[in-house]
Order: sequence, then C-alpha cells, then structure tokens
Amino acid sequence: MQKHTTFNAITLITPTASMTAEVFGGRAKCLQRLIRLDMPVPTTVALSFDTVRGIAQGRMPDIDAVLEPFGPTPLVSVRPSSLDPDWGGPGAVLNIGMNDARCAALADEIGLASAISLYLRFIQSFAINVARLDPEPFELPDDADEASLAAMLAAYEAETNEPFPQDPARQLGEVLRFMARAWDGTTARILREAKGAPADAGLGLVVQEMALGVGAPESGAGVIQFASEVTGAPEVKGRYLSQSQGRDALAQEGAIYLTRDPRGPSLEELCPEIYADLIRIGALARERLREEMQVEFTIESGVLHVLDAVRLPRSSRAAVRIAVALGEQGVIPREEAVLRIAPNTLNDLLHRQVAPDAAREVMASGIAASPGAASGQLVFSASEAQAAAARGEQSILVRRETTPEDIRGMHAASGVVTARGGITSHAAVIGRGLGLPCVVGVSNLTIDTRKRTIRAGSRVLGAGEIVTVDGHTGDVLIGQPGTIEPALDDAFRTLLSWADDLRDIGVRANADTPDDAQTARDFSAEGIGLCRTEHMFFDGERLTVMREMIFAQRDDDRAAALDRLLPMQRADFTRLFEIMEGLPVCIRLFDPPLHEFLPSDRAGLRDLAEALDQPLSDVMERAERMSEYNPMLGMRGVRLGITVPEIYDMQARAIFEAAIGLSEKTGGEFVPDIMLPLVSAQREVEIVRARIDSVAAAVQTETGREVTYRLGVMVETPRAALRAGDIAENTAFLSFGTNDMTQMTYGLSRDDAGRFMSEYVKQGVYREDPFHTLDLEGVGELLTIAAERGRTARNDLVLAICGEHGADQATIAFCRSHGFDYVSCSPFRVPGARLSAARLAVAGRMGLTEPPAKPGKILIYQ
Amino acid sequence: MQKHTTFNAITLITPTASMTAEVFGGRAKCLQRLIRLDMPVPTTVALSFDTVRGIAQGRMPDIDAVLEPFGPTPLVSVRPSSLDPDWGGPGAVLNIGMNDARCAALADEIGLASAISLYLRFIQSFAINVARLDPEPFELPDDADEASLAAMLAAYEAETNEPFPQDPARQLGEVLRFMARAWDGTTARILREAKGAPADAGLGLVVQEMALGVGAPESGAGVIQFASEVTGAPEVKGRYLSQSQGRDALAQEGAIYLTRDPRGPSLEELCPEIYADLIRIGALARERLREEMQVEFTIESGVLHVLDAVRLPRSSRAAVRIAVALGEQGVIPREEAVLRIAPNTLNDLLHRQVAPDAAREVMASGIAASPGAASGQLVFSASEAQAAAARGEQSILVRRETTPEDIRGMHAASGVVTARGGITSHAAVIGRGLGLPCVVGVSNLTIDTRKRTIRAGSRVLGAGEIVTVDGHTGDVLIGQPGTIEPALDDAFRTLLSWADDLRDIGVRANADTPDDAQTARDFSAEGIGLCRTEHMFFDGERLTVMREMIFAQRDDDRAAALDRLLPMQRADFTRLFEIMEGLPVCIRLFDPPLHEFLPSDRAGLRDLAEALDQPLSDVMERAERMSEYNPMLGMRGVRLGITVPEIYDMQARAIFEAAIGLSEKTGGEFVPDIMLPLVSAQREVEIVRARIDSVAAAVQTETGREVTYRLGVMVETPRAALRAGDIAENTAFLSFGTNDMTQMTYGLSRDDAGRFMSEYVKQGVYREDPFHTLDLEGVGELLTIAAERGRTARNDLVLAICGEHGADQATIAFCRSHGFDYVSCSPFRVPGARLSAARLAVAGRMGLTEPPAKPGKILIYQ
Repeated sequence: MQKHTTFNAITLITPTASMTAEVFGGRAKCLQRLIRLDMPVPTTVALSFDTVRGIAQGRMPDIDAVLEPFGPTPLVSVRPSSLDPDWGGPGAVLNIGMNDARCAALADEIGLASAISLYLRFIQSFAINVARLDPEPFELPDDADEASLAAMLAAYEAETNEPFPQDPARQLGEVLRFMARAWDGTTARILREAKGAPADAGLGLVVQEMALGVGAPESGAGVIQFASEVTGAPEVKGRYLSQSQGRDALAQEGAIYLTRDPRGPSLEELCPEIYADLIRIGALARERLREEMQVEFTIESGVLHVLDAVRLPRSSRAAVRIAVALGEQGVIPREEAVLRIAPNTLNDLLHRQVAPDAAREVMASGIAASPGAASGQLVFSASEAQAAAARGEQSILVRRETTPEDIRGMHAASGVVTARGGITSHAAVIGRGLGLPCVVGVSNLTIDTRKRTIRAGSRVLGAGEIVTVDGHTGDVLIGQPGTIEPALDDAFRTLLSWADDLRDIGVRANADTPDDAQTARDFSAEGIGLCRTEHMFFDGERLTVMREMIFAQRDDDRAAALDRLLPMQRADFTRLFEIMEGLPVCIRLFDPPLHEFLPSDRAGLRDLAEALDQPLSDVMERAERMSEYNPMLGMRGVRLGITVPEIYDMQARAIFEAAIGLSEKTGGEFVPDIMLPLVSAQREVEIVRARIDSVAAAVQTETGREVTYRLGVMVETPRAALRAGDIAENTAFLSFGTNDMTQMTYGLSRDDAGRFMSEYVKQGVYREDPFHTLDLEGVGELLTIAAERGRTARNDLVLAICGEHGADQATIAFCRSHGFDYVSCSPFRVPGARLSAARLAVAGRMGLTEPPAKPGKILIYQ
Repeated sequence: MQKHTTFNAITLITPTASMTAEVFGGRAKCLQRLIRLDMPVPTTVALSFDTVRGIAQGRMPDIDAVLEPFGPTPLVSVRPSSLDPDWGGPGAVLNIGMNDARCAALADEIGLASAISLYLRFIQSFAINVARLDPEPFELPDDADEASLAAMLAAYEAETNEPFPQDPARQLGEVLRFMARAWDGTTARILREAKGAPADAGLGLVVQEMALGVGAPESGAGVIQFASEVTGAPEVKGRYLSQSQGRDALAQEGAIYLTRDPRGPSLEELCPEIYADLIRIGALARERLREEMQVEFTIESGVLHVLDAVRLPRSSRAAVRIAVALGEQGVIPREEAVLRIAPNTLNDLLHRQVAPDAAREVMASGIAASPGAASGQLVFSASEAQAAAARGEQSILVRRETTPEDIRGMHAASGVVTARGGITSHAAVIGRGLGLPCVVGVSNLTIDTRKRTIRAGSRVLGAGEIVTVDGHTGDVLIGQPGTIEPALDDAFRTLLSWADDLRDIGVRANADTPDDAQTARDFSAEGIGLCRTEHMFFDGERLTVMREMIFAQRDDDRAAALDRLLPMQRADFTRLFEIMEGLPVCIRLFDPPLHEFLPSDRAGLRDLAEALDQPLSDVMERAERMSEYNPMLGMRGVRLGITVPEIYDMQARAIFEAAIGLSEKTGGEFVPDIMLPLVSAQREVEIVRARIDSVAAAVQTETGREVTYRLGVMVETPRAALRAGDIAENTAFLSFGTNDMTQMTYGLSRDDAGRFMSEYVKQGVYREDPFHTLDLEGVGELLTIAAERGRTARNDLVLAICGEHGADQATIAFCRSHGFDYVSCSPFRVPGARLSAARLAVAGRMGLTEPPAKPGKILIYQ
C-alpha cells in the first residue's frame, strides 16, 4: 500500500483555480501549507464552497474524478472546512470505501477483527448520519466478529429494504450530499451565526486518504502540541493511543503520554524516531505557519502521517504569552503580536476569575458591571463592610443601590452587588474604578435590610453567609468556588510596551484617589484625564464640614467651613500630583448636587440638626427644599460654580497651592488642568474663568510664584457640543463626558435604564446598550460637531474623551479619526485602551478599516 | 402780536437736511406733519440729535439763528423730542424770553398779574432746573405781584451772585445746555434703556413760540382726545382751563369739560367755534396721521393754537378697538391694524386682571406662570378645592408642587400657587391649559400642610382666608382687590379674523379634555396639535383600574384591567372628535412613568393594597421598585409602548373605534393623528407602528370599516432630532416637543431649574429662560437639523411644534422660516399665536426682518 504514503500535492475540486481559505475553507488551506512544507500528509482532495453548495442543490460533481487520486480501491475520510473552524460543521466521516471486499482484503493486512471493526464503524456512521436510521440497531458490538458484521448489515437492509451500498463512489456521494445539506440545516445556521458567521457562509469539504491507525507493527493515532494552553509556556503535551483513529486518544482509556513521563509510558520511549519527527514537524509548523499549532497524527504500520493541524486553543493568558514569544523570536513582527490579542482578553488577566471548572451554584444574575471574582461574607451596609475589613475578613456589600455615602464601604468590601442600576450606575462606575468585582441590576434579588437577608426565588441567605460575585458573568454564586489569579506577567508588560511604541493617541486614567492614581501609574497611564473631586468630601470629618457649608445661613459661616476644607483638599491634590510625578492631571471641579451630601434618613437628619445646633424641623425643611425631581438635570456642575462660587474658589486655591508645592519640591513647573462640568453656555465658562483667574492672581500675590493653569470644559450636554465653537474660545481643552452626553442625547437616565435596557437590546430596539458602546450615530454626531467647531475656533484645542466609553476600541477608533489627543478611562481599563489604540494604529498602517476581530485569522487564513 | 398766530413751516437746526424721526425725534416729526396739515401750530424750530449731542459736548449752535424765526422779542418753550416718547427726557421749559422788559410790555396786553405770573414761573423753572438752586426760595407765591417778583429776583441774585439773566439768547442757551446734559445723566440713561432705548439714543429739542393761554378775551389751555383710552370707543374727552398753560388743565382745579355735559360747564358752550374747530382738527389728524391722537391746545385771546399731538395712550382693549376701527374705516389697511397690536396685548383681554388702581397687599411673589387674576379661600389639597367648588365657593389651591393627582383639584380651584417649580412645571403647564391663574416657584412661601397655614416672613394665613393670585405679576395678594373683566368683544374677533386671513402657518391647540377642546374651538384653533392622554387616567374610577393594570401579576389580569379602561378611553376620544367636528386631532399615546399613578404616601399604599387584595409589604416593595432617580429620563413614553405594549394597543383601539364612530355619524372620513412620545431610535417607531397596524387590521376586520391613521413622532430627544431622516421614513409627521428638547439639550430639568434660573438670567448666563423663549442657538439648531433631514427623507413630511414655546412670536418666526406646517399651544395662547403668525407674514411681505416691537412706531415715525 505504498501509494498511501505518497505525499501528493492537494487536489482541488472547484470551478475556480485559486487555493484560498475564502474558497476552500481553513482546513483545506492549512493542509495545503503542511503539504508544501513536505509534511507526511496523506493524499487530499478539497471541495470548494461552491462545489458543496452545488451538491446541496443536487449538482453532484463527478465522484470518479474525486476518487481518482485515491486509486482503484479508495479508503477515505471527509472532514468539514469552513472559513472559521469555530463555525462548526458536520462531524467527520471516516473509512468511506469499506465494503465486503475491502474488509476481506484488509483482514490480510491488519487482521480480521481490526478490519471488521473499521467496517462496523463505517456502517454505523453511514446508517445513522447519512441514511438517518434509528441508532439503536447500530450500536457497536463488544466483539468485532463476522457475526456482528452480518447482523449489522442485515439490520441495515431490514431498515432500508436494500443492501448496504458496496460501491465506494456511491458511499462517498451519499456522504457528501449529507454533509452539504447538514450545513444548511436551521440549527447549524443559528449556531454558526451566533459565532459571527455571515448568512452566506460556505462549507468546503476535505476528502483524505485514510491513514488507518490499526494493524502492526505500531499503529495508532494521537494529538500533539508544543505549548501549554493554560500558561502559553513551551511544553510538549498530548496523547497517543495505539490501534485508534482520529482523536480517540483524547477521549478513550489506554492513551499514553508523548514525552517521557514518570507517570507512565510515552510515545518518546515507544517510537523515539517518530517522536523526534513530530518535534521537528512542530517546530517547522510553528515557524512557517507563524503560530502555535496542535497537530493530529496517525502512525500506520510504523509510518507517521500528519492528518491535520489547528491553531492551539488557548486561555487569554496563554494567548498573550504565545504572541509575545512569537514576536520576541522574530517569527512574527511585533505589530502582528499586538494585532493577535483582542483587547478584552486583557480583562481576564487583570482580574481574578472563577475557575472555569469550578462548581457554580448560581443564586441570582444581573449585569456584569465590573470584572473579577470575589468571595466574602454578606454585609448590608458600608459600616459592616468596614467592620469586616477591620477584622481582616472579606465581605460582599449588597445594596439596593449605592450612593456616594457608600464609597468607604465599597473600598472596604471585596465585591459589590446591587439590585438596581445599569452598566453605568454609581456602583458600576466606582467598582470599575476600584477594580472591584461588581454585579448590578440583579432585579430578581429581594434585599431585606431589616432582617438582613437576600432572597431570590425560594433561596434566602443571611448576613455573614459566604457568597461570590462573578463580575465576568454577572452571577451571584452561593459559597466560594475556586478561582484563578490575575496574570500581570512579563509577557503582559512586554505586549503593552510594544503597544505603547505603536499607538498614536494618548491614554490617561480616570483617578479620584491616591490608590486610583497609583493603579493608573502601574498601568502606565500618561496622566490623569479625569479626577472627580466630589468623592473627596465624603470622608467622615469632611462630610460634617461639608454639611455645615451647605447649611450655612450666612456667607461668613460658609467661608469658615470652606476654610476648613481647603487644607484637606490641598493635601488631596498634593498627593495626587506627587504620585503622578509631573504627568498631567485634569481636575474636574465639584459636580454633584449638594443634596447628595445630606443624610437620606430621619435619624441622620436628627444627628445633623444636633451637630449644626439648628432645630430639626428647619434642617428637614431645608433638606426637603434641596431635593430634586431629576437630580441629573438639576443644580449641579458649573451651575453650582455660578450660584455658590465659593466652592470653586476654594478648589482652585487648593489646586494652585498644591501645584506650587510640587513645583517647589521638584524644581520643574507643574501646570494643572482644571475642568468645568455640565456646561451648557459659553457665558458659564467666562464667569467661572474670571473667578478662577482672580484666585490665581491672589495666590500669585501671596506666594510670589507664578500661577498657571489650563482651563477646559467637560462637554456633557448636547448644547455644549453644539456651542463648542464659542466655548473653545475660552478653553484650552474639551473633554467629552460621554455618559452624561448619552443620557441627554437619548433622554435616558443611566440609573433607570437598567430596568428595560436588556429588553431593548434583545428586541433590537437599540443595537447595543449605548452606555456600553458609544452611539456613533447620535452621540457620535454631537461629538463630531463639537470637535469640528472647537478646532475651527482654536486649532490648538486639545480634544479628549473621559467617559466610560473611553476604553472601547470603537470609541478609540472614533477619537483617532477625529484627531483627538487622548482618551481617559478607569485605571483597570488602561491596558486594554493602550492595546486597542495600538491595534488601530497598526490596522490603519496596513490599510485595514479595523483590526481583525478574531486574532487567529491573521495567520491561518492568509 | 399778530405774528404769533402765523403758521410758519417748521425750521430745522441740523447738519443734515432730512426731516425724520430718526434725526429730530418723534415730537418734531409729528409737529411737522401737523403744520403740513395747516393746523394752527406756533412757529417751531427743531434741533436734531446731533445738534443736541454737540451742545452737551460744548458746541453751542448760533442761538441768534435759532431765535431768528421768533422775531426781535422772542417768547418760547423748549420740549424734548426723542425717537420714542416712552424714553422720557427732560421736562418742558416754558416762557423763555421773559425778562423785566417783556414783563412790562405783556402787562399792557394781558394784565400785570398775568404777566408777573408768567415771569415768576420762568424764574422758578430756570433757577431750579438750569441754575440748580435750592428750590425753597423759589416757591410760587399766592399772589403774583411786583413785590413777590422783586423777592424772587433778589433770591436768584443772592444765590448766584449775579442778576437773573435778561438776554433771551442767553436764557435759551442755558436751557438747551441743561436739557442736553440731563439726557446724558446716568439715571435718565438707565430709565430709558430699561424701556428698550439703545445706548446711543439721541435727544432732539423743539423750540416753539409760546401761545400764552393767559389774557383776554378768552385765553387758556387744554387737552382733547376723540376716543376712550379704556375701551377705545369714540368719545370726545378732555379738559380745558382758562388762564392756564400746557397741561395744567389735567392737574389743576377749575378745569371744565370740553363737550356739553350735565355735570358742569364746557368749552363747547364757552367757545362753540373753537370747539368745532377742535373737532375738525381731531378728525383731520386721525385720518391723516392714521392714528387716534391726543391734542394739546392753547387759546390765546380767542385764537386757537395746536401746540402738540401725541398718540393717545390706551389700554390693551382700547388698542384693539382703535386699530380695528381704523382698519374698518379704511384709515389704515388691515395688515397695519394687525401689525399695531402686540401679541401679548391679547393676554390682558383674555383674562381677568387685578384693577390697575386697586390696593395691593403683596404677601409673597413668585413666577407669573399663567395669566389672570382670581380670588378665593386658601385650600391645601385637591379634595378641599373640590369641596369648595361643590359649595359654589371660589378657592385658591396652594401646594408645594402639583402632581397629576392634583388635576381635578386644579379644575375645581380658581387659582393655583406652588412653592416650587418654574415656568414649565406641571402646575404652570396645566394652569395655562385651563386658563387658570397660576403663580409658581414662590420660594419664600412656607407651606405647613399639617397646620394648614402659609407663611411668608412674619405673615401667616390659614385655610379659608381669602387670597388673590395675580398671574400677570406673579404676586400672591392678601384679600380681594378689585378686578377688571376679560374683553373678548367684536373688535377682538374681527382683529383675529383678519389675522387668520393674513397668516401662512397653521395654529392648533394643545387640548387634553373636552373643556380644553371647546376653548380651542372658541379661539378658532384649526385642530388639536397635542392631546396628552395620560390626564385621562387620573379620574377617580379610572385611577383605580389603572393601578390594577400596573400591579397586574399576570398578562390576563393586565388585559382585563385594560379592557375596562377601553370604553372610557373610547368615550374620551369620541367627545373630543365630536367637539372638533372633523378638524385634525393629534393624540399622543401614553407618556408618563407608571409610578406617577401610584399613591405617594403610606396611607394611599395601604388603601391600594386593600383594593388589590395584596399584602401591603408586596405593594410597597413593588411601588418602591418602580420609583426612579430621574423620572424625566426613565421608563416612559415609547419605552412603555415597547415594554408594556398592551397600553398602546388599547389606546390605538379606542382611537380607531372612536374615529369610526365619528365617520359613521357624519358620513365623512375622519383620520386621526397618532403621535409617539420620547422616541430616540427609529426602531422604536417601527416596532410600535407594527403593533398599531395590527390593531388597525383587527378593528377593520371586526367592523368592516376601513381604518386609516397618520403616525407621527414627538421629537423631544436630541437623538430623535439627529436621526430625523430615518425616523421620517416611518412617519407622516414630526412634532417638536420643545420643553423636553430644551431639558435634554441643556441637561436641565424644568422642575428643578426654577431654583437658579432667575439668578442665571440676572447674571446674563442665559440671555433668557430657555423654557420661556426658545433657545435658537442650541435647541433651534437641533430643530433645524431635524427639519432638514426629515424633509430630505420625505418631502411631504408635516412639521409642527407643540411645546410651550409654540405661541411665541420668535418661535413662530423660526417655524415659518423652516417651512413648518403648524404650531400648537395652550388654548388660551391660540389667539396670540394667530396674531403673531399674521404679523410675521405681513412683516415678511413688507420686507421687514420682524414685526415692529412697538405698535405705535408704525404711524408716528414713518
């Protein structure tokens, strides 16, 4: 049977001539490359998408021509070859060509039982899949003998009223027709479209000479790979099973190791030359296919055949390590290594995850708002979380929703669950900022804060019981499943340093606290693009002073309270500036409505009245008066800066004094960025700018040091976008707050949208959650208008984005194409943003409209 | 002294030649016209703005030339002549030229006492105004004799160290310098700029030969007019005082009637020929000056002189009647009659007003949100207001703010006061809709609903005490001042019928109830542009069913509740359609968040739990879950239509069945307009359209009658404006909800803006309250974008505006210039909108950029 080992070039069955994955599918293309590398691939014939489409429509190609390369007594397999292996396809059919005569002939070569076994497997496969018969009569017998063969042939004839087909050409024709039609089945179509296949995705088929894997001397089949699919580290792994076909070695007992192993026998010991050949083949494939591959091989009577090779499936961590290794070794350019890693892959590396194989007892599910996994005891208030932290215990904070008062509790907790809110609710934004696993909008979770229980359906858990937040899936799990740790290893750092060399847009971090700032630096952010100052006023003592300021009846009382806040605020900025070591820091002045700082319940108001020495009824009345119907659209942002200007005065002074302090310490000159929130009219900017300028002049007079700053506007209202031309005349930069801009453009509160957003996306009302993916058609148009008008008014205007969308690849693409200077995002999203920016730059230089969505494609199919 | 009666043409003192009001002021221009009509006007010299400006800067013209027309012994007056008489100016100075010699000469003609009297008056006026001396020594003595004259001349010399100037040229020069400088004084400038004068407004001066009004045979002065300044009805009115000058007749005792009058002597009896001449002059002036004039005249020794004529000051009601009379008599074209009435003039006619002369005891002040005046007893809840109405008593409903639950109470009350909210708060919108006087945002008013008192400062009023709401000024008055009634008379209707003939854009009304619809028809609205359906569900029984629907646990429970609402809703539409008699009716489907229909307090929730037979805790929890952070941006509008589609199904069915009912009754075919609120994506429209289409098909099948409708979108979100091109493909019309659009464009809640809006407008941060005056720069640009994209997609697209701004002239101007089809506004604002639309059309045809702001200008100055 010498011709079986002949390494024929692949034979193409197609109306067109070119051998591409787009015409024949990925498997065929890969086999062709293996053949060209002189690997021992059995004779192979490839049928193109068009050919297979024709078969499904009843136009069968000349089967004799297909079989011609396999000689007069063909024995072949048929495997699917779609453009993307992930799209699935009909299972392989092996041993086509087996019939009575061939069985008898093979018995001489490999023994009767082995020959009958192959025949039985083929009859079974044909009967069930092709003839669509009831599987029960075709179960494989324990013993492959002539009686069981006769019984199965009889069963076939009884069911179909005709004998089992003996003509290999007819067998193959039926198999091809079955496979072609299976591809068009509804279920197959839905499944592959869910994986991103287009509606007209084609199926190619690969007909290949069987390498039997049964018989003597050594025969069998196995799978080999050369790196760990978990870590990406170099390692020869796989299994080999004597007297087997296909991938049986991975599934059946009796398989042995490939490399010498203390735990048992190995192929290296059994067939040292074949093992050495496999190692050589692996190295060759890796270098020439420019990818870490997994190879399927068969040994037939001591001769090695390579049947197939696929891209090694891998974890996110392995993906990074493999891409970096290929890049470092010069197998691929660094640009390609960067292109091969999808940005969201990094999420898995940055955060602890529930182990993929851990048992999951899901209590309830919501929106996965901040990635990572954390376990801890259930707590129901910020103070309980702080108490647990003080005891050194992990806790999961469960709230109906979180408010700024909960921030210290969130710092103390290991994870957060809220019953309400969406992807940009308070809990979600803060959670992402802190890198804290967070699940929000768990609408079927009932929280009883009095009894201190949570309930979902009939399940009830009480305070102190252990739960796990899975911020990847949005699940709340009972108990503590196993987890895998984050992997910020050398490969991760190398990949991002390459990305930084390649990208052409800045990446800053949104950071409010020294911890945030440190994280931002750890992730190599190029500065702080958004420092929200309001969180600084919720800390114990400050909150009290803040409330005194809010309730001050006279200007001098207010001034006194602000005088006490000034040194605290100055210290905040001093620390931030020191951590950032001269990198730019953009400080957004006070934004939220003042009533957020008031106690929300009667007891808190009573305490406040006592602290202020004012009658409770007065305090309640004033608190009541301050409440708002739509706080998002109320008395906040620059409106406070206009109507209670003393707050911004204090903040400006704190910024200037801290900046002078840093300049004195380092000898360099540090220029802070000051940003105004919620602007809707140019005059707002003028008025606040005049006040800040006079604070700057005063500080300059007092200190004798020059005070400089850059003033900018956070463009969050549609009107600010439309009037960006006027506004730019008074500002050095515009930074787009896309969250609020999305809220106002859609007329949709992010805190309230959670209740119907999933329904909306499911029904396709919105293509995507616009708080998650920037709405280019609506919000994007306002940004475009603003960018154009701003730059027209002032061509050195700095443009940036600092909303939650800033880390998304699509958003960064938008920003690049509109000439933005930088994006700013949560510290934990900075690595993804750096990578995305690099991928976009590389894709742009390659003339692609966007980076490849599937990293694997680059190699296998081109 | 014959030359005093010579009717010289006016002499001009100016570097330029043309005699226009823009160069010499209104008084000079009017005098020139009187002279050209051969009226007996004394010799007059006019000084132009530039001349007077020169005097103020020290460049005195040749005084001898100014005096030349008055002969060798001039005796003249100087009066101000600004472009607009309303802008004020220095007071007239009379008798310039009086000196010792002239006094002696005049004594021969008119008697010594009269001559001394004139001299004394001049010395007084000169001393106080021109020489700026202490007034006390210059009080006029009881007896004008030589001793008192000597005393006053001595006083002058004592104060100034020089004798009283005897040279008429020097006297006049001093007077001119004084008047020119007074015009530049700060106070004068502020006062006139508050009335709309530009910063560079000029002052002209008129120097006129004195007609003495003293002496024998008959001498004196008076003022005459030919129509009532209150009603506008033709009537000769005025006063005449023998031996007087100027307007003394109006102020001093002893004046007599002009026309024969049972109450006393009259000029008609005293000097019948002069009276007849005045009547002739009045008729001539009215016809040739094309305006109802008030004429100042003097009789000098039996000879009539006309010194001046001004446009008759008049009430709003008189303004309409006079304009219509002039139009009907052909004195002016109808176009001009329409131009002469400012649209806001009509407000005074539509509503009762506090009488201008009534005593006002102001308790507190807020925002004048809905015009009119109403008095009644203080009530603190909707039910109290209804109880008062049931007793036939007037009430004023006072609330912190109103909610949809208060609507029935608002219907029952005579006026509404709220402590919170702005010009477009719920109370304000509903108040205007109902024509109910309303004052909102009375922030210094403390309402104690428990004690049932209101407090402002130290003033406290309790339930049942009488207060008055002044919706014109925004005052809350204690007690019940006198009022004047609305005046929807024939002149009003005639004027608006002319307006309808002239205008080129439609005017519809926003009407939710049969009462509203009837008002709309009474005011000749061309249809209903916005029928808000949600108000229909607050009525007692319906509210209960509504709540059952909201709390339905199962689909069939919800369906059952909606089945009960269907006939009620159908009856609503049937009545509306009948009242509108086939005119278009645009029904906006259900808009507000469902939680607005839930009780707001615990007691209400307890009642609801009982009614629903559900545990209170469940009801409370569900109500709590439905609450929203920012209801304005929440689960409302078309979002309900998508997620709880049964509500729109029910409404669509009710509309179709009512429309078929009307068509059957009238034989014509009635096509309703159905409008979707809060759209932000085209797909929302597609989805709801498909559901409504299937309801239409079902009703068609059931009734065998064809069902047609027009679907439209209420464009309220910036995104809907930006995507208007897509949206238009599924719609017959777009109607702009400018209130919500303003909220979203600015990021500003109308309910919360009241707290700082006045501060913002005061500081000039916003030029105007954008909820009051459409923001053309921001919101207007979004409307422009939407209109262009919508019409590009579908050139027969109907465009309309249905926000609160719809009645404003500036908004209508915007709509006309963008090709809108109609505006829709509160019924009570329909007349103003009809008039504004006509004025714009007329101004457009005249080539003006906008209609004249001051109706008077048209005649007097051109």
